[in-house]
Parts: sequence; structure tokens; C-alpha cells
Amino acid sequence: MKSGLEIAQQAHLQPIADVARTAGLAPDELELYGRYRAKVELSVLDRLKDGPDGHLVITTAITPTKAGEGKTTTSVSLTQGLGKIGKRVALCLREPSMGPVFGIKGGGNGGGYAQVVPMEEINLHLNGDFHAVTAAHNLLAAALDASIFNGNALDIDPQTVTWPRTLDVNDRELRYTVVGLGGKAHGVPRENQFVITAASEIMAVFALASDLHDLRARLGRIVVADDRAGKPVTAEDLKVAGAMTVIMKDAIKPNLVQTLEGQPVLIHAGPFGNIAHANNSIIEDRVALKLADYVVTEAGFASDLGFQKFCDIVCRVGRLTPSAAVLVTTVRATKSHGGMAFSELGNENLEALRRGADNLAAHVGIVKRYGIPCVVSINNFPTDTDAEVRLIEELAITAGAETVVVNQAFASTSRTRW
Amino acid sequence: MKSGLEIAQQAHLQPIADVARTAGLAPDELELYGRYRAKVELSVLDRLKDGPDGHLVITTAITPTKAGEGKTTTSVSLTQGLGKIGKRVALCLREPSMGPVFGIKGGGNGGGYAQVVPMEEINLHLNGDFHAVTAAHNLLAAALDASIFNGNALDIDPQTVTWPRTLDVNDRELRYTVVGLGGKAHGVPRENQFVITAASEIMAVFALASDLHDLRARLGRIVVADDRAGKPVTAEDLKVAGAMTVIMKDAIKPNLVQTLEGQPVLIHAGPFGNIAHANNSIIEDRVALKLADYVVTEAGFASDLGFQKFCDIVCRVGRLTPSAAVLVTTVRATKSHGGMAFSELGNENLEALRRGADNLAAHVGIVKRYGIPCVVSINNFPTDTDAEVRLIEELAITAGAETVVVNQAFASTSRTRW
Amino acid sequence: MKSGLEIAQQAHLQPIADVARTAGLAPDELELYGRYRAKVELSVLDRLKDGPDGHLVITTAITPTKAGEGKTTTSVSLTQGLGKIGKRVALCLREPSMGPVFGIKGGGNGGGYAQVVPMEEINLHLNGDFHAVTAAHNLLAAALDASIFNGNALDIDPQTVTWPRTLDVNDRELRYTVVGLGGKAHGVPRENQFVITAASEIMAVFALASDLHDLRARLGRIVVADDRAGKPVTAEDLKVAGAMTVIMKDAIKPNLVQTLEGQPVLIHAGPFGNIAHANNSIIEDRVALKLADYVVTEAGFASDLGFQKFCDIVCRVGRLTPSAAVLVTTVRATKSHGGMAFSELGNENLEALRRGADNLAAHVGIVKRYGIPCVVSINNFPTDTDAEVRLIEELAITAGAETVVVNQAFASTSRTRW
Amino acid sequence: MKSGLEIAQQAHLQPIADVARTAGLAPDELELYGRYRAKVELSVLDRLKDGPDGHLVITTAITPTKAGEGKTTTSVSLTQGLGKIGKRVALCLREPSMGPVFGIKGGGNGGGYAQVVPMEEINLHLNGDFHAVTAAHNLLAAALDASIFNGNALDIDPQTVTWPRTLDVNDRELRYTVVGLGGKAHGVPRENQFVITAASEIMAVFALASDLHDLRARLGRIVVADDRAGKPVTAEDLKVAGAMTVIMKDAIKPNLVQTLEGQPVLIHAGPFGNIAHANNSIIEDRVALKLADYVVTEAGFASDLGFQKFCDIVCRVGRLTPSAAVLVTTVRATKSHGGMAFSELGNENLEALRRGADNLAAHVGIVKRYGIPCVVSINNFPTDTDAEVRLIEELAITAGAETVVVNQAFASTSRTRW
Repeated sequence: MKSGLEIAQQAHLQPIADVARTAGLAPDELELYGRYRAKVELSVLDRLKDGPDGHLVITTAITPTKAGEGKTTTSVSLTQGLGKIGKRVALCLREPSMGPVFGIKGGGNGGGYAQVVPMEEINLHLNGDFHAVTAAHNLLAAALDASIFNGNALDIDPQTVTWPRTLDVNDRELRYTVVGLGGKAHGVPRENQFVITAASEIMAVFALASDLHDLRARLGRIVVADDRAGKPVTAEDLKVAGAMTVIMKDAIKPNLVQTLEGQPVLIHAGPFGNIAHANNSIIEDRVALKLADYVVTEAGFASDLGFQKFCDIVCRVGRLTPSAAVLVTTVRATKSHGGMAFSELGNENLEALRRGADNLAAHVGIVKRYGIPCVVSINNFPTDTDAEVRLIEELAITAGAETVVVNQAFASTSRTRW
Repeated sequence: MKSGLEIAQQAHLQPIADVARTAGLAPDELELYGRYRAKVELSVLDRLKDGPDGHLVITTAITPTKAGEGKTTTSVSLTQGLGKIGKRVALCLREPSMGPVFGIKGGGNGGGYAQVVPMEEINLHLNGDFHAVTAAHNLLAAALDASIFNGNALDIDPQTVTWPRTLDVNDRELRYTVVGLGGKAHGVPRENQFVITAASEIMAVFALASDLHDLRARLGRIVVADDRAGKPVTAEDLKVAGAMTVIMKDAIKPNLVQTLEGQPVLIHAGPFGNIAHANNSIIEDRVALKLADYVVTEAGFASDLGFQKFCDIVCRVGRLTPSAAVLVTTVRATKSHGGMAFSELGNENLEALRRGADNLAAHVGIVKRYGIPCVVSINNFPTDTDAEVRLIEELAITAGAETVVVNQAFASTSRTRW
Repeated sequence: MKSGLEIAQQAHLQPIADVARTAGLAPDELELYGRYRAKVELSVLDRLKDGPDGHLVITTAITPTKAGEGKTTTSVSLTQGLGKIGKRVALCLREPSMGPVFGIKGGGNGGGYAQVVPMEEINLHLNGDFHAVTAAHNLLAAALDASIFNGNALDIDPQTVTWPRTLDVNDRELRYTVVGLGGKAHGVPRENQFVITAASEIMAVFALASDLHDLRARLGRIVVADDRAGKPVTAEDLKVAGAMTVIMKDAIKPNLVQTLEGQPVLIHAGPFGNIAHANNSIIEDRVALKLADYVVTEAGFASDLGFQKFCDIVCRVGRLTPSAAVLVTTVRATKSHGGMAFSELGNENLEALRRGADNLAAHVGIVKRYGIPCVVSINNFPTDTDAEVRLIEELAITAGAETVVVNQAFASTSRTRW
Repeated sequence: MKSGLEIAQQAHLQPIADVARTAGLAPDELELYGRYRAKVELSVLDRLKDGPDGHLVITTAITPTKAGEGKTTTSVSLTQGLGKIGKRVALCLREPSMGPVFGIKGGGNGGGYAQVVPMEEINLHLNGDFHAVTAAHNLLAAALDASIFNGNALDIDPQTVTWPRTLDVNDRELRYTVVGLGGKAHGVPRENQFVITAASEIMAVFALASDLHDLRARLGRIVVADDRAGKPVTAEDLKVAGAMTVIMKDAIKPNLVQTLEGQPVLIHAGPFGNIAHANNSIIEDRVALKLADYVVTEAGFASDLGFQKFCDIVCRVGRLTPSAAVLVTTVRATKSHGGMAFSELGNENLEALRRGADNLAAHVGIVKRYGIPCVVSINNFPTDTDAEVRLIEELAITAGAETVVVNQAFASTSRTRW
């Protein structure tokens, strides 16, 4: 059996220009970055502005456990399955942060035969968007400190600065720092934090922007400190929002890659859920909805975090209406919620499954409360017994799910059978 | 009269694929990044390894003055001129650092009708190489501090750390910092500096590498600290050189753009002259020498810095042999060296010119000592009088220059007449 | 009417040698510090070790309010009153911290005609004990950092250091610092706090010591950090406890001053109640109990803090048995606990007084729970009405107080009438 | 043979009150601090203001070597010798800094049978003057930062602060610090240094003051920072000079101790020579000159530092006129200046002695240039040969010394024979 890494590295990719053409993009709407990735020009939205939008399916999950649920794998296999049966489909994902890639978390492109490729490019620089966010973020930080240093015309109180610096690396050492040391020639001493790029407010702002003009306005409104009278100081006040926008001018275009089976995948923006809304960009959703009849998009974390933020923030700002939600769970994770030790999850335990299904039921409830049809997708593991699968199907229906599907694509064991 | 910015923005660019084809690159040796810039695959070196090398012309200058000399403009106009008269020519440049672009220095793509385009992309992210250097650099920093934090298996003395962190931004506030604050959970307190990306040792190492394998070895040898026994600790010891190389895997490919008149321009690496060797990458020179009969390459700063480093470091490491050097000067700058105030440089002053030509003579001497034919190129300004131009030509010949040319392309006033 | 300050400055003091002789001290048991203060040699405890101990009366108070209760003033006036009626009496106080003296809090030597003098000397250096604590404390800090710096033979983890530095000044700027900067020659960077001398652990330790030998042992046991194996590192491990004891060799001797009416007052040690036990030294109590038939000693803060710590810590360590407790309150403070605004406390309000007496009752209860007779002392203010005084007397008795007295000494209005 | 420490600890001291009476002090001019040390009231200067001044003899030395010269020992033995032959004599010394006492330097009270006692009290707190300097210094620092923190009414630029904090301890870790961390509630972040108390400007100021009123003025004039307009900010501006003076009110009185043979010794102030004038207080000199016919005072370091500062600064400010200078040297130190290794100084070497005497000659020259008679005092070591002693005597006379004496008191080997 091949590992997910081997599968990705041995995959035969289609030229991204072909994927784009099949997806309905005109040649001048594509900016190639090498052979297998591209950026999509926002002009496509103008061209297709009067066309219909596809159906939007949002993928979410139960509360995460150490057992893993496979949300991205489900999103990819759903996309590949819809493609297989002839539907015009597109997948929308967040861009993975490079920091954790070199940590323990690994990348974010699915697994087994349900992956998005080219894997390495996606997990590294992709098309430079995170670098652009990093550069724009730090330009604002430098402009802020330069303004304080050079006469402080805005009368900023250095101790009210809330704007950190950012790097796309997991660097514990930079969490709490003192900057501006070395004497009067080298800045103004103050405490300053660094955050990872995915936690930058610019990442969040950029994921919500509708176009470059809107991004410019949103960047300008970012508050970085107070002046000594208590009035907020913005990037606009610092006259740096224009330069930040120039740095972001390519980053605002969604990136195009593909599934292992050749369906188009858009990847754009990656705000973290702990401090932002944990969903890919609205521009990306809009482009996908114009190109495909079915658009699968994935919300970060469980339904009480990423899904709610998708409904409450993304749908409102982007005027989107989801047609269905896929709620991902597994027998193993549900038993884990039922109190089983991780090392024993391979053993049949209907009682633990029943107890753990309370968690599943709560998440079904959250989805239903938004009035969205809920499909529960059970990622089937080899150790799951038939009795367990039947029981969880039954409990999902009882909890209010419209449909239950058993997804056997998971864990590199087989091709997608949706 | 149009400004340099207007000229650049109104330029009609050829598709970079066409420029590449004309230059002799095969389609699969090109990785497009949008329409007007690309990366060149290193496989071209294998394909053409038995072909002849072109002639290498190195551009240098007298000691810089506030008056400006126009070295890059000269390099571009020489390239355009050689193209005009039908020679197969290519230009090699360093990539400008984004930090100073947003400072007072401005970009580094020439001026007037002698520019390299697309200007904005060149001055911003180009194809992400500087971002890759930044990411690899900071990954090494994070790995170093993580090693100290997590038990310090290499017994590193934190106070011997010489490895800074880096950002591609002019940020005075980060020159001297204390990191690792916030208590035992958040790192180990120590003093740490930030440098601009162009001053990263990785930038220097990468400009000297011959291929990805060699880069891997060079990155591994980087010394970041001492252990408590005084033994140097390297990136290899920290087991992070492989990951750094993966981050640099696209950055190692030279970037292809064009002059305003369509000649191919390679831009690759940008090490600062104050701490490194101030020349573009050796890979870039080698690719250009295989593709063109005449390759113009530019050394940073004056001949006693960038030119000497080119001869002493780049030519030795890269086994290159320059055919000629172009030494750039102006009447104005020479008069400035002769003691004239900046505000009076527009007035004829043969005596100041004669005195200032000592500087020119010294630089001619440096070039000649390396046994390389020296062409003195005088950038002609409207205020220069005929007597001044004749005098400087004469003084250049007296100093040992093989040829003197008067370049009228400068200062956006006219098209190239070499 | 004279202010407390004027009264103190115009007081006619007895030579301290006379006060000492009257108190029963031999000439060689006294070390003069100027004319009006002295230190008492610990040899007095040997000479009188077989003599009887006097009665120990502990002064405490209700929960402090902005209105002020006058605990020290009560302690002094009780001492003066007992002296007036011919009892051999001594007063034991904590030494005030110099930091707050220059802040808003002011000194701690009583008020009006019930003061301890010489006021300025008491509120400044007194006989140097706080300075000795500061010096010993910082010597330990320096020894700790020197040990880390010079090879770290004890393998101390700098981030586990819990030993702050100390200064006897209110200095906000020193609360959180980073020390050891300036490169490898100048120490090891780490976060370090400064505390006020009264909050030094040495202050607490010294107040509990029975003699110089015991102090030596207590100083040696102070834990300052962990080594990398998690084992505590002590002052003894750092071989600095001996030097610290030498620095403290005079500080261990109690200081002798006098009341405005000439009764002997011992002042010794001043540990803060928020981090230590908030009572004067045990040595001081022991000396006073040998010299006098009645010893008045004062516990910091209200009965639920200083009094409980006195009973639970000081009495146990020092094997002391209090004969009675004086619980200080006022009509005004009690009305304040009953909900009256500060600005209206001058108006009669029996209802507020009744409500606020719950606080008084709780403190009476605390004292009674230790089996100690409780005398409630009401500091009478000119604005108190007869009805209020009668009511609070009645409520105090109801709460369980053995006796209630009305003290008219307070607020500089009259001589002591106990 | 007894060590210097044993001699000091076994010495039979006279009550300091007796020493004072013999020296001519009235009882009310003495403030006892224990039995063997006291402070002298400045009122003595009023009482004796019309009396004659004694002769002032200043002790200095050649350039210090590792071999040690014994300047303080010479000063003490000269005092003891003058006392022995019936002269009214007094010795004036600086107070040793407690920091180096616990370091490697040891105390500063002489050696062998030529010591000042009580040794421990002199080397520790003495009468608290250094602690008062420390407290006043840090009160000013706290007031400065409090002023910046609380609205910065004086518009101080925190990065221009030149006022360090101080502690009387050798603490490398405090040389370079960042203070004011912990967020807006805890001060304003800035770089701040700590110096040892002997290096405090207050120590220098206090050594130059003529009385409490003059000290008040000098403290007020201390500059601590600039405001943003570049105007100096003083302690007076911060309204803290009065409080600082109160803290120093006892410190301004000279301390009285004695030699091993009972002559009066005044010890007062101890400014370091590297940053201040390296001499004891002017008040101390004035008191001694009124009490004694011969006053020996000692200048720090060699004649080119402490002696010159004594003549240029102390004599001018204090209107003093020295009658003679004693220039201390040894055969060993002179041979060391002549190039001999430390380990071989015990061997006779007339040539090295002759070469090294150039140093002696230079210092004699410095003394003579001020018009002061120069007595060269040779501290005789057991290893010195007669030929060496004769040669150095001869060379000293040749260099211009009026007299040469051989002092056999040194190194604990014998009683004083001057």
C-alpha cells in the first residue's frame, strides 16, 4: 500500500492550463506560476457576473480528537466523486501556513487518493501570497515605529501599540520581545510580539475583501495603536495603506491547482480560527461559484467555530447562501468522545459510540439551526465493525441529519467511493 | 519629456515566452510566472554544457557620489545597443531588495529609456526568491532556538549566537532586540539582531552555489553559534539544512525578464556589498554565457568593492573570465570628487574635473591590475560642456583606459546611442 | 491646635540611655546610634533568661477603610496610658519602609500626642536594618548570577530563578526588567523583578530568627532557583549565607526609641503582610517581655491577616502566649462598612453603624476563636455623637467583646485618656 | 606571625568617646554609633572656625602594579608614627565600597600593625553613608521615571536619560538592563544601567559639599536627562532634591574611628577615581585640620590621577593648601615597572630597578610641578637587598625628592618604625 506522500509524488498532473480551460477560464484570465499552478485574474468575475452561481456545499466536522476525522480528505473525495459522476465541480480551500509544515502538524492537502496537488508547492510558498501578507504586515509595523521615532507627529503612545510583527514560521523565541534597543539612534524601546502570518489581521482582512479597492479600504482601517489622547491610529493615518496594497496586488488573485483526479481547486488565504474567521477567501468562493455547478468549501475546525463563522461572517460579507453542509465524523472519533482510550479505539464498543454520539448530535443541531440541510459523512476505517457503522448511521438520523454517507476513501486504503 | 516611471509603465512588453524562445531556451526550460516574467530551469545548463561561452563584460564605476553615476542605466543601454546592432546579448543583474524600495533609495532597474521591465514586479516580489531566502533564514534561526530550548542537546552557548533573524524591510526598530521573553514556556532570553534579507548569509551562499546539491552543502556549513566547548555549530548540526534547501528549490532558478527593447535579462540573487560579495548569482552568469555571445553583468558599488570581489570571489568560484570591464563615470561626479559643491556641478570647471579625475585614474588602475581591458563610459548630461567631455576623455586615456565612450542614454533624455 | 508633625518636632526627648536604664537595660547592653536611638545587645536575653515574661497584648483592627482606624495611635496611647498609671510597659512595632514614606502613605509612628520619636530617624534609615536587608538580598542575587555566569557549576536553569533583586524605594520602573544584556562579557540575559525591601524574603526570615546562628541557618535555606534536574538551589549551595549573615550582624539587634511620654519602644523588622507575616521580630518581642510587665505589640492589617498570622506563625515559632487583644475600630469606619459615603461620615447614622458593625462582629469572632480576651477600642472622633458611641459599645459587647474602651487620644485633639 | 586580620580582630580598641575627647571634640559634637565608631557634628567647624589649620600631608603613589605598593598602610603608619612622637595628628580616608569587599579586592583599612579599626564595621555599613547615597540616588531615578510615566509634564525624552540606578554590590548582571517592562501599567520601557554606589554622582557631589545647604544646591543641579527640546532636566526640576537631602542629613557628618595605636581617623565619602575625583570629603579634611597639627590624607590611585585631582579639584573647591606629599613606592613595584616578571621580583636586579625608576621619577615630577615638597616613602619588603634600597633612595633624590624614608611597617612583619 502506498503512503499519501508517495501517491502525491507519483501523481500524473494535468497542465494547469488544461484544468483551467476545462473549468471555463479564458486564457487571459490565467497567470501561470510554473506548469501546475496559476493565479486567476479577477476579470473573470466581470466576464461572468451575469451568470448563475453554483450550489455551495460547506464541509465541517465534529469536535476534533486525537483520532483525526479527515475533513479535508472528505472535501477532496466529495469533489472527486462529483467530478466522477460528471458534475461541474470546484473545491475551495484555505492555504496552509508554512510554519506548521516544518513543525509537527504537516500540510493541509488531504490524504491517500484524495489529495490536492502539487503537494510541495501548496505546502511551501504556493504563489507567494503568505509572503506578501508577511511583507505588508511588517511594512506597516516599520512605518508605525518610524513614525514614532521620527518626531512622532501622530503623538502615538508606544505602549498602546497592538500591532505585532509577523513571520510565517513557528518561532517560540519571538513570542515576547523587546525591540528598539541600542540607544537613541536605533529606535524607541518597547515590548513587541511576533505572530505567525496566518494570525495576521491582514490575512483576515484580505480573505474578506471583494476586490483590490475594497482591500485598500480595509487595510487603511486597521488600528495599530492609540495616540496619547486615546484616539485610534490607523494604517491610513500612517499613509502606508497604499504601499501595503501594492504589495498585495498579486496576492488578491486566487490560486488554481487540481485534485489527484483533475478537478479544479482554488486555494486562497488562510486565516487562523483562533483569532480570525478560519475560512478561505470570499473572492475564491465567488470565482468558484461562477465556474462550477457544485462548489465544495471547507470551514476550519468544528461546526461551532469555523462553520458558525462561515455562516455569521463569510456569508454575510460575501452574500453567499450554502445549499448543504457535510458534517464529517468517524466511528473512532465518536468512540473517543464517548470516553475510550486512544489505544483501544480499534475495539468494537457500541456503548462508547452511543455516548460519544452526543457530540455528533450537538454539531448536527448547530448546522440545522442555520436552516441548512445536513449530510453526515462517516469516514470508514478498516477497524470499524458493521454494527458500529449501522449504529452511528442510525444515531445521526435520530439527531436530525437529512442523509448519512459512508466514505471509504479515507486513510489511503482505496479510491474514492462516495 | 516622460519620466522613467511613465516610460516603464507605458512600455509595450513582449510575452516572456517569446523573449525566451528568441534567446534560445526550450519551452520546457521555462517556468512562467505570469506573462512577463519566468524562471529558467537549470536543465538548460546540461543541454548546452558542451557549447561555447559568450564574452563576459563587467560593469563597474568610480567611487559613488551624491551626483549619481548611472551604472545600471549604462549596463542596460549597453545591452540594448549590442542588441540593436544584431549581437546575441544578455544582461545579468542583482535582484533589488524590497526594503529600500519603500525607503528613499528606489528600485534598481535602470532609468529613462534604458530600463528593465516589468518594473513593479522586479521591485516587489519578483518570483519570490527573497521571500524564500527570508523563510530559510528564519527557519534556521527558529531551529537554533528550538534546539537550545528543548534540552540543548548540542550544548550551544546562547550568548555566542551570531545568526540574526531577517526581514526584507527597512526596520530600524529591529536592529537590536531581546527575544525569548515571557517566562520559561516561551523561549530562552537573549539578545538578537535582525538584518535585511539582502544581508543574509543565505543570500551570499545562494549566489555562489552551482546547483541545488551544492547549495545544500553550503547551507549545511553555515555556522550559527559555538557550543560551550568553543566548537562551531552549523545548520547541518541542527539537521535543518535539508528543509532550508527545500524552501530554496525554486529560488535557485534564475528569473527572466527583458529590457525595454526586448533583450533577455536575467535577475538572480542580491547580496549586499557591505557584508557579502555584491554580485548576482553564478548560476545566472553561467546560463547567460551559454545563451548569448555577449553577457553584460554588473558589480555592486565601485571597482574597489564590487569589481574586486567579482574578480577575487565570483570568477574563482564560478571559473569565469571577463573579456572587458566598463567603468562608468560622469563629468558631474568627477567634478564632485574634485571638490565642487553639489549645487554648482552644472557649471563648467575644468580644474575641478582635472582634480577629480584622480579618482577615475585610481579605478582604471584597479581594473588594469586584473589584466582586463578597460572601457571608460561617460554618461553625458545636458549640462556637460564639450571642453569638459573632451578633457575627461583625454584624462581617461592617460590613466590607461583602452577606449572611452560617451553614453547619451542617461537621464531619460534620449534613446540609446552607444 | 498643633499638627502631629509639629508635636513630634517640638517634643522634648529623653536621652535614650536614660530610657534604657529605666527600662532595666545594663549599659553594656546598649549600642548608641546618636543620642535618641540605640540598638539592644542580644546578651540581655541571656542575663534575664530565668526572669518572668510580661503580659503580651496584641493590637489589631477591623477591615481597613479610607476613614482610617488609628491602630498605631491606639498602641502608642495604650503604652503611654499604662506608663502613666505606673506600669512597667514596652511597645513593639515594625520598622516603616522608606519607600512609601516618600510616596503617599507617610510614616508609621502614630499621630497627635500618641507618637513614637524621633520621628524622622524612624521613618528614614533608623539604624540601617533595612539597608542591611537590601545589601544581603542583593549580594545573594549577585552571587546567583555570578555562579551562572562563571561556568554554572550548580547547573542552574536561569529561567527558574525566583529570587528578585530589591530596593527600599517605590519604583514602578523596576517591577519587570531584563538584566544581563550587553553581550557575553556582561552577564546572562534573563527576566528579573525588583521588589521593595519590606517584601524581601530576608525581611521575613530575619523577623522569625531567634539569634544570629538561627538567622545563618534560615538564610542558608532560602531557595533561589532550580537546577536543570529540578532540584532547588539554596543560598547555602551558593556559599553566600555566611557573608549575608555578616551583613546582618547588627541588623539582628532590636532598635530602641521612645514614646512622646518616655516609655521604651522597640522597633525591629518590617515584613509586608501581602507576602509575609506582617509582624515585628520575635527577638524584639522576647526582649520586651523580659524587660516589661506589659508589652503592647501590633499586628499588621486587620485581624484576619496580621492577627491570624501573629497567632499562627509568630506565636508558634516564638513560643509566645498573648494575654489579650485590642481590636481597634471607629464609629466612622464602622459607618463606612455600613455603606455610607466618605463625605457623609460626619453625620449621625445609627442604621449604617448597625449594619457596619457586622464587620466588627466578624473580627471579634476571629479573636475569640483563638481563645484570647478581646478588648474593643473605639477611637473617638469629635463628630461622633453620644448615641453612636453608646450603640457601638453595645454592639461590640453583643458580638462577644469582653470590654469596650473609648480612646479620646486620637486625631491630635487631646492628651491620652485611656 | 599574625595575619592582618588576626591583628585587627585581637586589637584592644579605645572607646571612641575617649578618642574623640583626646582629639579635642566636645561631647555634644559626637554622635555615637556603638562603642567604637561615631559621627562628628558639623557644629565643631563653627566652634573652631577662628582656630588655626594644621599641616596637610597628602599621600600618593607610583603607577600601581600587581606587586602592591601599600599606600593606605603608609598613611596609617605615618599617622601612628607622628602620634608616637607626640604630635597631634589625624588621618583622613575614603570609605571603602562594600561591593568589592565581597569581591576579590578586600577592604581598605591598611594592613599588618598599621590598620584602622574596627575593621569589619569600616568595611561593611560603617555608619550608613553609602546606603544613604544609594537611597538618595535611587529616589532620584524613581522620581525621574515616575515623572515620565505620569504624564511627562517636563517632556523628558526617555532615551536621553543619563541617570543610572545604583547598588553597592559588584553585580555584573545589572550593567546593562531594560526596565519598565510588563505593559503600560508598569512603567515606560527603556535601557538603563546600574553603577556601583562609589560611582554615583551623588557620592562625588557629597564629597565636595561644604555643608547641608551646599549639598542641597549641588543635588538640585544634577542633570539626569534632556527634554525633547534638548534642555537639561535636573533633580531640582523633578522637585526631589529636598527629599534627597533629607536622606543625606546624617551622611554629611564625618565618621570617626581610630588607628591600632589610638590616633583619630576620619572616614568620609568614597568617590571612585575612574569617574570622579577619588578623594575623601572636604568636610572631613576641614574638621581634621581644625583638630590636629598634622593631617594625613590619601588620594586614590597614582599621582597622575588622585593626586592631580586632589590639587586641581579638592584644593580649589575646599581652599586647602598641602604642606607635603608622600609618594609611596617599593623596590618590588619599581622592578616590575622595569620589566621583571611578577614571580621573579624576589631576586635582586639593579638594572630592572634602574629602568623602573623612570616611573618613580615621573611621579616625583608631577608632585614637584605643583610646588609641593615630595617625600618618597619606600615600603621595605624582606626580599629587598641593601643594594636595591640604596639605589632606589639615590634615584629618588636624583629625580627631585626632598627626602626619602624607608618604611618597615609593611606586610605585617613589624611594628611601625618610621
